[in-house]
Amino acid sequence: MTDAANLVLVLNGPNLNLLGTREPEVYGLDTLDDIAMMLEDRAGELGLTIDLRQSNHEGHLIDWLHEAASRGVRAVILNAGGLTHTSVALHDAIKSITVPVIEVHISNPHAREAFRHHSFISPVAAGVICGFGPQGYRLALDAAATF
Amino acid sequence: MTDAANLVLVLNGPNLNLLGTREPEVYGLDTLDDIAMMLEDRAGELGLTIDLRQSNHEGHLIDWLHEAASRGVRAVILNAGGLTHTSVALHDAIKSITVPVIEVHISNPHAREAFRHHSFISPVAAGVICGFGPQGYRLALDAAATF
Amino acid sequence: MTDAANLVLVLNGPNLNLLGTREPEVYGLDTLDDIAMMLEDRAGELGLTIDLRQSNHEGHLIDWLHEAASRGVRAVILNAGGLTHTSVALHDAIKSITVPVIEVHISNPHAREAFRHHSFISPVAAGVICGFGPQGYRLALDAAATF
Amino acid sequence: MTDAANLVLVLNGPNLNLLGTREPEVYGLDTLDDIAMMLEDRAGELGLTIDLRQSNHEGHLIDWLHEAASRGVRAVILNAGGLTHTSVALHDAIKSITVPVIEVHISNPHAREAFRHHSFISPVAAGVICGFGPQGYRLALDAAATF
Amino acid sequence: MTDAANLVLVLNGPNLNLLGTREPEVYGLDTLDDIAMMLEDRAGELGLTIDLRQSNHEGHLIDWLHEAASRGVRAVILNAGGLTHTSVALHDAIKSITVPVIEVHISNPHAREAFRHHSFISPVAAGVICGFGPQGYRLALDAAATF
Amino acid sequence: MTDAANLVLVLNGPNLNLLGTREPEVYGLDTLDDIAMMLEDRAGELGLTIDLRQSNHEGHLIDWLHEAASRGVRAVILNAGGLTHTSVALHDAIKSITVPVIEVHISNPHAREAFRHHSFISPVAAGVICGFGPQGYRLALDAAATF
Amino acid sequence: MTDAANLVLVLNGPNLNLLGTREPEVYGLDTLDDIAMMLEDRAGELGLTIDLRQSNHEGHLIDWLHEAASRGVRAVILNAGGLTHTSVALHDAIKSITVPVIEVHISNPHAREAFRHHSFISPVAAGVICGFGPQGYRLALDAAATF
Amino acid sequence: MTDAANLVLVLNGPNLNLLGTREPEVYGLDTLDDIAMMLEDRAGELGLTIDLRQSNHEGHLIDWLHEAASRGVRAVILNAGGLTHTSVALHDAIKSITVPVIEVHISNPHAREAFRHHSFISPVAAGVICGFGPQGYRLALDAAATF
Amino acid sequence: MTDAANLVLVLNGPNLNLLGTREPEVYGLDTLDDIAMMLEDRAGELGLTIDLRQSNHEGHLIDWLHEAASRGVRAVILNAGGLTHTSVALHDAIKSITVPVIEVHISNPHAREAFRHHSFISPVAAGVICGFGPQGYRLALDAAATF
Amino acid sequence: MTDAANLVLVLNGPNLNLLGTREPEVYGLDTLDDIAMMLEDRAGELGLTIDLRQSNHEGHLIDWLHEAASRGVRAVILNAGGLTHTSVALHDAIKSITVPVIEVHISNPHAREAFRHHSFISPVAAGVICGFGPQGYRLALDAAATF
Amino acid sequence: MTDAANLVLVLNGPNLNLLGTREPEVYGLDTLDDIAMMLEDRAGELGLTIDLRQSNHEGHLIDWLHEAASRGVRAVILNAGGLTHTSVALHDAIKSITVPVIEVHISNPHAREAFRHHSFISPVAAGVICGFGPQGYRLALDAAATF
Amino acid sequence: MTDAANLVLVLNGPNLNLLGTREPEVYGLDTLDDIAMMLEDRAGELGLTIDLRQSNHEGHLIDWLHEAASRGVRAVILNAGGLTHTSVALHDAIKSITVPVIEVHISNPHAREAFRHHSFISPVAAGVICGFGPQGYRLALDAAATF
Repeated sequence: MTDAANLVLVLNGPNLNLLGTREPEVYGLDTLDDIAMMLEDRAGELGLTIDLRQSNHEGHLIDWLHEAASRGVRAVILNAGGLTHTSVALHDAIKSITVPVIEVHISNPHAREAFRHHSFISPVAAGVICGFGPQGYRLALDAAATF
Repeated sequence: MTDAANLVLVLNGPNLNLLGTREPEVYGLDTLDDIAMMLEDRAGELGLTIDLRQSNHEGHLIDWLHEAASRGVRAVILNAGGLTHTSVALHDAIKSITVPVIEVHISNPHAREAFRHHSFISPVAAGVICGFGPQGYRLALDAAATF
Repeated sequence: MTDAANLVLVLNGPNLNLLGTREPEVYGLDTLDDIAMMLEDRAGELGLTIDLRQSNHEGHLIDWLHEAASRGVRAVILNAGGLTHTSVALHDAIKSITVPVIEVHISNPHAREAFRHHSFISPVAAGVICGFGPQGYRLALDAAATF
Repeated sequence: MTDAANLVLVLNGPNLNLLGTREPEVYGLDTLDDIAMMLEDRAGELGLTIDLRQSNHEGHLIDWLHEAASRGVRAVILNAGGLTHTSVALHDAIKSITVPVIEVHISNPHAREAFRHHSFISPVAAGVICGFGPQGYRLALDAAATF
Repeated sequence: MTDAANLVLVLNGPNLNLLGTREPEVYGLDTLDDIAMMLEDRAGELGLTIDLRQSNHEGHLIDWLHEAASRGVRAVILNAGGLTHTSVALHDAIKSITVPVIEVHISNPHAREAFRHHSFISPVAAGVICGFGPQGYRLALDAAATF
Repeated sequence: MTDAANLVLVLNGPNLNLLGTREPEVYGLDTLDDIAMMLEDRAGELGLTIDLRQSNHEGHLIDWLHEAASRGVRAVILNAGGLTHTSVALHDAIKSITVPVIEVHISNPHAREAFRHHSFISPVAAGVICGFGPQGYRLALDAAATF
Repeated sequence: MTDAANLVLVLNGPNLNLLGTREPEVYGLDTLDDIAMMLEDRAGELGLTIDLRQSNHEGHLIDWLHEAASRGVRAVILNAGGLTHTSVALHDAIKSITVPVIEVHISNPHAREAFRHHSFISPVAAGVICGFGPQGYRLALDAAATF
Repeated sequence: MTDAANLVLVLNGPNLNLLGTREPEVYGLDTLDDIAMMLEDRAGELGLTIDLRQSNHEGHLIDWLHEAASRGVRAVILNAGGLTHTSVALHDAIKSITVPVIEVHISNPHAREAFRHHSFISPVAAGVICGFGPQGYRLALDAAATF
Repeated sequence: MTDAANLVLVLNGPNLNLLGTREPEVYGLDTLDDIAMMLEDRAGELGLTIDLRQSNHEGHLIDWLHEAASRGVRAVILNAGGLTHTSVALHDAIKSITVPVIEVHISNPHAREAFRHHSFISPVAAGVICGFGPQGYRLALDAAATF
Repeated sequence: MTDAANLVLVLNGPNLNLLGTREPEVYGLDTLDDIAMMLEDRAGELGLTIDLRQSNHEGHLIDWLHEAASRGVRAVILNAGGLTHTSVALHDAIKSITVPVIEVHISNPHAREAFRHHSFISPVAAGVICGFGPQGYRLALDAAATF
Repeated sequence: MTDAANLVLVLNGPNLNLLGTREPEVYGLDTLDDIAMMLEDRAGELGLTIDLRQSNHEGHLIDWLHEAASRGVRAVILNAGGLTHTSVALHDAIKSITVPVIEVHISNPHAREAFRHHSFISPVAAGVICGFGPQGYRLALDAAATF
Repeated sequence: MTDAANLVLVLNGPNLNLLGTREPEVYGLDTLDDIAMMLEDRAGELGLTIDLRQSNHEGHLIDWLHEAASRGVRAVILNAGGLTHTSVALHDAIKSITVPVIEVHISNPHAREAFRHHSFISPVAAGVICGFGPQGYRLALDAAATF
């Protein structure tokens, strides 16, 4: 049986299902499945469990954040993709719950177009990690282990 | 049988399902169910019926606005949550129909962060009520009764 | 004898003395006297008294807000007209007192010119009601009754 | 059997299901079904097949763009409605795939409100056609035939 | 007896009582009385009467604009001084009446500080004359004679 | 023989050759020839001569301003049309000469689109007259007579 | 004899005479003559005649738009080059005439520098086509055939 | 008999009559009368006289600035309250006179809302003192003594 | 022995070593040594000691602010020169310590270029004094005496 | 016979024909002819030929830039006058050719009005020289000699 | 002997020497020495060496970044403090070298004042970690171990 | 003995010590020593002496500018590197002295990121030269020779 206090939800937003095929010069060659496996290995070492999900729907991400709160998980790792820069609703969802949310980006948004320089997630995130490629998820998991 | 001309749809957007638990110092202790009961009582006094719904999906809110138009309801009361500040699609949906839409907010967005000061709903709303807590819904229903 | 605790001041700013003649397609045909009568009727039902005033001088509105505070009235309903968008002094006056102030607009400023989209009153108002025509005053009075 | 290389997806975003009824002075009297029939006729002449879809959900449009890529269709014609002006996620979806995407608008957004002057679709579109009413879809199909 | 239809109100706002002493390199040496005499002479030639007033109170200017409307004067010549750049209430007052209002400035605001480049009077004025010194009032009177 | 000191150049920029046919609800029914005749009549009364020209080329307007300076004319009346809002080169031409230049507009640019609210001519003009229709040229001529 | 009602003027602005040599990675290898031949062929099929012109002078483009109006041509196809982003005078010229004007760009301005994202032509164009290379002119001609 | 050359006017704008009761955590507990007494004591030591006034009307402050000029007082100490941030008319009044005006604020506007960061008084003030509470008036009086 | 509780550090930033020679029409003829002597005299009267320093290095100013905190001085008077408008690091240094810092400027930055209108020091300063020339330091010392 | 490879075109835009008479405190007393003579002397020393031209027409400058490219001249020295700040068409013309273009200004635009701080020429210029008076042309010629 | 390839420089900018005492509610209770010890322990586990430095001088940070490049260290961890938001020179220093630089912040700048939302370091950093308190340095070291 | 009147200081700011190794595609292969030698040769021809220095510290550049003034050198050539875009203190230092300062940039900042488009040096520089690579220093020296 999964102990919610040791569970970390890893939520991925729009287009992250294409990882490994989408603009590999920006996002690398790892697929989301590769990342899930890497995280499961690392979670095992840390005594944690992960549950990695992806959706192209803002609404699902909000639903899952609410679920995280009602189940009392340890932390959420959130890569909201393009919604990062536009979604007040996700901002509100994170602010509405007490579960810590760690924002992760595979690429470095600050080195890209101006519209990627502002994040609605960052002001309500427990912490932000970006630019390290898929290793960013692992760093986030390590951080979650200390919560 | 519900008479559409006396029906008022009360549509709620992202995170309003958490009412009563989310940031109670901002949003108060009433749940959405409490508000539904209060509104049903008041609707009875006014000879109206209400149908209160909530979704975290922008698409559902748009679908419901279209439904309101095709059924010919008297009015829609809309609290679009965080989508208020970002959704041109909701703006267009309201502009596309002739049913009057009353915008409601439990808190006063103008007393909060700058990104909450602009509403894409307000320019196409029949009226706007904000800052009165859950009583705002009741005031909106009273207004709808006069349409 | 008027009991201050049941008194509601209804303050109207510049140009509202022209109601009923000014741009009737925007502001309707009711005069300020018509609105006063409607509000007196409603106040009677609610066990309240109203005192409706109008001035084209910012200074008078500030004086009256101070008077409201020193007399301890239940609430102020304020339609500051064009001063809404420019007066830091009115903002400060409202912030200086503890009497709740309800902001009312007959038309919907958000559907008009850009310079009407920002209100210096809203961030310090107990609540905001706009777009419902003269009925907005009545809704504000109903809200005041619950304070 | 449909040959993907001759298939053109025609994707329509929020509120376009109301075409023919919504603001006819802006959008005309043709329904989306009328447009589908016109496009099917033209596609036949060009040796192409079309698949016209509509959704009020951003997530569905992203899913369909991904499907277009995995099936290897010739082109996508996209009228993203109000999401045009707000969706970084759609921008990313188009950038993530190599299928050319043609942006179409029935009305001319540049002749409307300021918030319609910027498109997140345009910078990643193969081409943009707007202002020609339903004929814009036909022009887009003709352009797709040359890809 | 003064015939309202031949009467032109010449309203002057804050600090214009100092004309002739205030920054003479910008505003010249004529006093407001000198201007009144010049205008009375010219009005006589045109079969018009003038009534020149000055106040440092925004409220008085609004009151006088309302008076102009209720008396049915031919035109108002308005030099609103510094209120030109800040007063939505004056904008509304002019918009509320049908008497034509001609905006006059002695200096050329466009050649001065940036905060003088925008006028809330101009968009609702029948015409604007600036930069000609006191002769601007005379040109405005000539224009009023043709209304 | 024309005496340059009594000559007033009346320069008209792009599209003013269409006066009388172009958007008559904005610009009226008078043609540029009608205006020339009116001005010639008025010039005769004032002991002045006018020379009215029109060009759709910015370069010609600049050439003519230089000509005005080298001939030593009394004044230039300039309606630069759309170049008003974009031409630093015209601004510089006016600043380069000592002949006074009076800016005229038939309509009131401040009551139109935002991009018409700024003029590169105004800061270097001797005076500005706008909104009075073709009579604005006559008022400008009267002003020139006093230089 | 050319029938004006079947004539389409194809007007090209600054630097388009360099097509085929200028930045071929952006504008392709076709010269303006190549485009003229392609359009003449297509015009023949549609029962139309074209008259393709190019100038580096804003004034000529305005003159030609006026000529189009006075001759009563069916439509104008306009690629205004760099003037697209700066010319209020061209905006006014198009607004001054009733002949429909179709805006064409060979490249996609929205995928280039920020100063190319705004067009003064678009708000007054009958339609806009951009990003399709020289084929954009053909699509515009097809659109003109339906006017 | 008061010698104007030793007189310092201490002018206070909107809401400063509430000092001591208004937001004491921002403005402290001293009333305007307390400040007047403190200043009178200090003025005595410096051989000066003070005349402290307060009004909620912009017009009165302007009238008093004019009076200061016509009487030839030594200096004006001005706390314009909320008008500080909005009043071009006060800016002009100060610029119109040669009496030095010292701007004082009890709180530190730069540590408060963004709309308090700009002052129309500062660019024309002889000096600015803010953030020292009621002692700021005393420092201003000391400065005035050196003029 | 200097008692830290009676010590006031007077820190001066870039270019203030040139006082007396630099732009005397803006900064006057007093050198920094003159100011130091004036302050020492005044400090003696107040029972205080001053330590006046100057550096063109941001780092030294930060070091000295830290020193002030570790020594527990009564107050710091800081004229940060051009760093006032650009240094977040100085802002942070002041915020990091509990010693009160009084911001002084010899000239009035609000009457100069726009880039001098914002100060990173002001929001964290105990008070601000500007425009009084070298006397501003003395006023600051008087204020420090009351802390 | 002129060898194009040693020819340097020196192109001057609007109002530069007035050099020597126009605002001499800004532009000095040298005429364009004086500058041509100075440059011819210097060109002789460098084994170069110059061809100095001036026009008030943007179109001519573009034509000449195209001519420079087709003739294969060594370099163009361009002082575009007021068009510097507004002409995307000139920007495009420079970008369209491979001949290096050196931007020269007699005065220092950065020390003047804000609208002169941005140049559309600079981003596509081989180099920029400004503020050195007529000597700037000579420095540019020396630079061209090294290309 | 330290092997540069295993050396990680940990550079700290202005005010970070106050860690543990400065605003502990924002920055926590750990001193920079505590962090150094934690990092040395972790570095030992990873087979790395650290060299932690702090300066309040921008110039020293730049010098150290250059030193890192010339010595060929594995990575730099940089917390530039307030310089993060203002220093183009640091941006250039990082861009000038090929050693990867990891940006770390103890607090979450995105949850603080607007002037902390932009970083000149981020666009040139290999990765960014913020909001995790002192643990952010450890995560950065772990990331550096993978380079 | 060096004659100050023939001495030219060549001051270089942050990161210019890396010239020749830093981003050679932007800054070329010449080191600062190469440039010094080139300048010394040229100075000899011109009867001048140069003193080339570099520092990563803003404070040193300011100190050196002050030194230039006190020694009375002929001119300063200043390449302030990244400080160009951020340093009001350097702006003030140049404004504080009467020695002419020539601003030089090796690359063309206007062709790079937006934050490099504004220079705090330019408005107070005697002249600006950019984009010519190391030759820009030589052109500046030639210009200095004419002072």
